[in-house]
Amino acid sequence: MKKEVKATTDLIPTPVVLVTTQGADGPPNIITLAWAGVVNSEPPMVGIGIRPGRHSYGLLMETRAFCVNIPHAGIIKAVDVCGVASGRDVDKFALTGLTPEAASRVKPPLIKECPINLECRLVHTLALGSHTLFVGEILTAHRDEAVLDEKGRITMEKFAALAYCPGVHDYRAIGEKLGRYGFSKGKMA
Amino acid sequence: MKKEVKATTDLIPTPVVLVTTQGADGPPNIITLAWAGVVNSEPPMVGIGIRPGRHSYGLLMETRAFCVNIPHAGIIKAVDVCGVASGRDVDKFALTGLTPEAASRVKPPLIKECPINLECRLVHTLALGSHTLFVGEILTAHRDEAVLDEKGRITMEKFAALAYCPGVHDYRAIGEKLGRYGFSKGKMA
Repeated sequence: MKKEVKATTDLIPTPVVLVTTQGADGPPNIITLAWAGVVNSEPPMVGIGIRPGRHSYGLLMETRAFCVNIPHAGIIKAVDVCGVASGRDVDKFALTGLTPEAASRVKPPLIKECPINLECRLVHTLALGSHTLFVGEILTAHRDEAVLDEKGRITMEKFAALAYCPGVHDYRAIGEKLGRYGFSKGKMA
Repeated sequence: MKKEVKATTDLIPTPVVLVTTQGADGPPNIITLAWAGVVNSEPPMVGIGIRPGRHSYGLLMETRAFCVNIPHAGIIKAVDVCGVASGRDVDKFALTGLTPEAASRVKPPLIKECPINLECRLVHTLALGSHTLFVGEILTAHRDEAVLDEKGRITMEKFAALAYCPGVHDYRAIGEKLGRYGFSKGKMA
């Protein structure tokens, strides 16, 4: 039986990403976000939602660029703390021990410990209420060789990826492969 | 070592959702999307990306409403086929055996077999290139009692949730809980 409940953001799962920003002056910052998703394929674009009160909001608006860094389970404590601490009070790189690496196309750094990094330039801003949606065009991407096979493809068996479950407030591991069924003719088997 | 690669949508994981739409006349349709995410908390909103050539695009534009239905692993073949078949050629409810249920606030139906359903009214449309981003305000939500605990909370142990891994093209199960560390003071343990 279904139960009707108050409108809620029960979209399970969401990604968990570490977004880096940097203003014209001053150090870079990190924010953990679950309000993130792919919004376009050609050109590749991601959307991220940030509350205007967050320190990252001002930094992103200032230089109109950000990097999306995809973490793995081994750094989950850093992932969690970067969602709670504020870059106004603390240097989150120093706090967590995460390592900034120069990006090639934008000012904010990549996070070395994240196996995937997407460099983005801001292309759209949409104020929605509690959050502003930032749409970024992915200019270039980086993959750690530790999660790749010999052909350069991401290999989930080498990448302890994470998901977030809104409503449940859990971080969860990505589990076993359930196939790609590939009904190329649009027929059920 | 990091390897710089061509810009790509390597955001791992994304959700996998079945979006229902319905025009002013005619039957409802289902489309499987991985380009989906939460974009705002108050009011709750989701963003979904759909190519203008898809049948769902026209239906959504016509009645400016959609439902986001969250599937489970038991219906993965239906999930896959609804991403490949077109509602122009086939009735995807009949093809898959999925069951439409009346929504309470919008015209497109819910999918009974999906444990979570979000009814949305379209509030923003943003053409981005290959896809158009549709932002929907979640008006009301439904949860199947089969995935809830006695307090009405979603219980991941009762819900065989799915994720999609862009770049890898895998459907994956959501695995074990990795805690919620709750560094409420923003300090590393």
